[in-house]
Amino acid sequence: MFSLHNTHRNRAFNTFKKEVINIYWVDLNSDLGESFGNYTLGMDEQVIKHVTSVNIACGWHAGDPLVMDRTIKVALREKTAIGAHPGFPDLLGFGRRNLAATPEEIKAYVQYQLGALMAFAKANRTAIQHVKAHGALYNMAAKDAKLAMALAEAIHEVDSDIILMGLANSEMISAGKEVGLKVANEVFADRAYSPDGTLVSRRLPGAVIHDADIALSRVVRMVKEGKVEAVNGQDIEIKADSICVHGDNPEAVEFTRKIRARLEQEGVEVTAVSNFIK
Amino acid sequence: MFSLHNTHRNRAFNTFKKEVINIYWVDLNSDLGESFGNYTLGMDEQVIKHVTSVNIACGWHAGDPLVMDRTIKVALREKTAIGAHPGFPDLLGFGRRNLAATPEEIKAYVQYQLGALMAFAKANRTAIQHVKAHGALYNMAAKDAKLAMALAEAIHEVDSDIILMGLANSEMISAGKEVGLKVANEVFADRAYSPDGTLVSRRLPGAVIHDADIALSRVVRMVKEGKVEAVNGQDIEIKADSICVHGDNPEAVEFTRKIRARLEQEGVEVTAVSNFIK
Amino acid sequence: MFSLHNTHRNRAFNTFKKEVINIYWVDLNSDLGESFGNYTLGMDEQVIKHVTSVNIACGWHAGDPLVMDRTIKVALREKTAIGAHPGFPDLLGFGRRNLAATPEEIKAYVQYQLGALMAFAKANRTAIQHVKAHGALYNMAAKDAKLAMALAEAIHEVDSDIILMGLANSEMISAGKEVGLKVANEVFADRAYSPDGTLVSRRLPGAVIHDADIALSRVVRMVKEGKVEAVNGQDIEIKADSICVHGDNPEAVEFTRKIRARLEQEGVEVTAVSNFIK
Amino acid sequence: MFSLHNTHRNRAFNTFKKEVINIYWVDLNSDLGESFGNYTLGMDEQVIKHVTSVNIACGWHAGDPLVMDRTIKVALREKTAIGAHPGFPDLLGFGRRNLAATPEEIKAYVQYQLGALMAFAKANRTAIQHVKAHGALYNMAAKDAKLAMALAEAIHEVDSDIILMGLANSEMISAGKEVGLKVANEVFADRAYSPDGTLVSRRLPGAVIHDADIALSRVVRMVKEGKVEAVNGQDIEIKADSICVHGDNPEAVEFTRKIRARLEQEGVEVTAVSNFIK
Repeated sequence: MFSLHNTHRNRAFNTFKKEVINIYWVDLNSDLGESFGNYTLGMDEQVIKHVTSVNIACGWHAGDPLVMDRTIKVALREKTAIGAHPGFPDLLGFGRRNLAATPEEIKAYVQYQLGALMAFAKANRTAIQHVKAHGALYNMAAKDAKLAMALAEAIHEVDSDIILMGLANSEMISAGKEVGLKVANEVFADRAYSPDGTLVSRRLPGAVIHDADIALSRVVRMVKEGKVEAVNGQDIEIKADSICVHGDNPEAVEFTRKIRARLEQEGVEVTAVSNFIK
Repeated sequence: MFSLHNTHRNRAFNTFKKEVINIYWVDLNSDLGESFGNYTLGMDEQVIKHVTSVNIACGWHAGDPLVMDRTIKVALREKTAIGAHPGFPDLLGFGRRNLAATPEEIKAYVQYQLGALMAFAKANRTAIQHVKAHGALYNMAAKDAKLAMALAEAIHEVDSDIILMGLANSEMISAGKEVGLKVANEVFADRAYSPDGTLVSRRLPGAVIHDADIALSRVVRMVKEGKVEAVNGQDIEIKADSICVHGDNPEAVEFTRKIRARLEQEGVEVTAVSNFIK
Repeated sequence: MFSLHNTHRNRAFNTFKKEVINIYWVDLNSDLGESFGNYTLGMDEQVIKHVTSVNIACGWHAGDPLVMDRTIKVALREKTAIGAHPGFPDLLGFGRRNLAATPEEIKAYVQYQLGALMAFAKANRTAIQHVKAHGALYNMAAKDAKLAMALAEAIHEVDSDIILMGLANSEMISAGKEVGLKVANEVFADRAYSPDGTLVSRRLPGAVIHDADIALSRVVRMVKEGKVEAVNGQDIEIKADSICVHGDNPEAVEFTRKIRARLEQEGVEVTAVSNFIK
Repeated sequence: MFSLHNTHRNRAFNTFKKEVINIYWVDLNSDLGESFGNYTLGMDEQVIKHVTSVNIACGWHAGDPLVMDRTIKVALREKTAIGAHPGFPDLLGFGRRNLAATPEEIKAYVQYQLGALMAFAKANRTAIQHVKAHGALYNMAAKDAKLAMALAEAIHEVDSDIILMGLANSEMISAGKEVGLKVANEVFADRAYSPDGTLVSRRLPGAVIHDADIALSRVVRMVKEGKVEAVNGQDIEIKADSICVHGDNPEAVEFTRKIRARLEQEGVEVTAVSNFIK
């Protein structure tokens, strides 16, 4: 009944392009709709100008029903694709603290939050492109195969057309493929990678890349060559379907603008994942 | 994509029956799925044997994601129709305390909760038959045309096939009709009615009918004659599509069983509202 | 065991001053500590420079344990007196929506929140000067004698030395006096008064005074003459122990600075209510 | 200002007894006040007849302000000592799920909850005897020295006379002693112990002792000899100041009654920890 606004256009043509004339594409995604009640958070109106997919908080770790509805309307206006961004029931900790929930609980929590956002999508005559887990739930499901499977099954049971966006090379990607979902591999411009393809923990030195130029070059290489240099100097394979960017502060918005400009300059088409993930 | 399990069957035939051979039908509805986390509430497994529609709490005033999923599975097993039972964000007060929320807030709250339950319905390959507001939200929307309209619009925007179940003769019924929803008029077996067709406030003497036989006779008359005696002795018109029953305690379950037996004895077909509301 | 830092000093002398040489004093109070988890709200560090008492949110409508502890430390550093600012259990609505809680519930809610803040006061070797209800709780208790009594009894049972700060001429002041609490009459610089001494509802035209100079002159007159001109032009009696000011935005902070400067220029001593309320 | 009702009586005499005529004493503690809003949990009125200290939930993982006040009144009537039972902000998980909160957060959470309960204690003219962490917070602080220290400091800063009740041989006991608190070593009748004196994880076979007679004999030996047989058959030292009992169901209440009867039969005085912990 509902069709994704303009994000599915040209899918066949895009596929053609990639195979024949070797043009690249990638998605830029950002967390949006993290305000709550009387509290405002994030430069949603600024960052959305530069991204192609938004992850909308669903009222558990951030966001509320009015914010969800409003954020969907902004996404429609700006023609970005819409994703659900479910998190732990921990508003106080912004969903950033590991919680020892069972796979059964996590599956139900994801379905609940996804459904809530789908209602606003339906009311606004649009649909959900993807689901990306938030914060501690994302980090835990990246490493724990059972939690990853709970997340993947949660989505697949509700709507098997929705894309699971997860950390490249993580358990989330494996689980998504296993249940038959389309998956989007997410990469980070400013984070160091381990030789096994996972992110270096923020608690370790060198985990964050502070030099913007290096970060930009790494992003371009991940998108065009499918490779990134790991912390030990060795090149590893990485698939970059979507790049995670931020809208917390003016610097983050400006860096997002730069990433997009650089990618386009390099001949990469920046477009929502549903336009090129089959 | 999803079809109501067995509740839509025979709709055409039922309509034929009513017009030609004057057989009556009515729905029995009960609130279910009000447990939360470690807390258990209600005799769900007992009362569901006797009703045809269940109103499932959506996690705000009661219920949680695991309970919602489990309750939908019980409803499928028992072949009752499924409704969403949204309430105020007041778990501490069980959604029974008036909250001065705006129509815009209430609309968003209802869509959020309805969507959350729809996700579990989809995951279980079923659909939502109706929405019935809970507690203070029900009482406020019964009298306040703006809140009633917010409720009706919330449902209509998400899925215009869903039935709005509301207090007979209330603003909810008017609003539902106005936006183009199918509506189900709900009546109460054990409550006194005012001459204007609304319920006598529980704070007034005589508001609750304690004699089970009188209550049963009143129910039968409401269903078959469309009339009930108001507190002033005067007969008033009332449409009885669904009768609200309870499963809080063994006596309530037993009374529910009696209502159903008496109705069937009187030749009334007890069936979900979607089977006879056009 | 705990003594109010510097707010009780000179009480005897102050009393002497008022009686003999007719010097005036008044308190300036502002809501603080309204941040929550990852959400920041209010210019606490700026506005606290200009006020003498702060009302600290207690985690229900705003604030959280870390914020409460931090805000008490800021108040100690800036030598302002500390008050508890209990509100309804409605973080989503910021405690600004009327909730039909019973007096028994409200009494328990106030004791819970007051106790929580007292723990941080004790841990920081200070004490609570006053309690001022927040938002909808404040507005409801101003008009409803039973709720006002619940608030007053809640405080008195926990610590009968704490001052009840409430709207001048309201039921809160009456209830506080009746249970034997010290009371602080609060006035608003920018609000119009009805002939009966209560605030004109914000929903009515003229409720808010937008001209800063007029507001300042009204404040001075309330403090020095105990009078204010009501909306009908008639002078009414009003006791001004504390003036409510805001720190939401730079303009509010600047207006607060102006109020204090003007009051001091007029010979009014701006000091915490515990320094002059006996 | 407030004194513990009858629990401090005879402390000097008790000390005398233990040293001279070798009489033993122990406390029986149970979690109470776990109901919430419309949800009832636990057989509080039954189990309290058999215990000497109660741990009252503080509204985060269970309990609410009305329940807290009511439970304190019941404890006063039954002359049991009162303890605060703080837990994680996880009502949905009943505080039983590990949450990666920082020591700073945990310290603030404990102070908040302790303070809230202290308000009801003050309003009822009694005081808090002890603090015992709940569920996952208890389990985490038993093993993590930093969290244990956060818990101990939280209590000590608010009231250094309060006893820290914690798992015997755990980090909580060490931390309590280190900050200068009195500590109560808690033991479990129905749980197996590791050779290092800690509890065998419930996930391992043999963790729970199902034979009531064996459990009773172990309890008696822990109290009178200070020893218990570990899972490897070796005797280990254990100090038993308080035995944890349950009131969830009739069997648990009956087992509690039996423990007390057996202890008294063995010449052990069953009394609140404040009566014998110096």
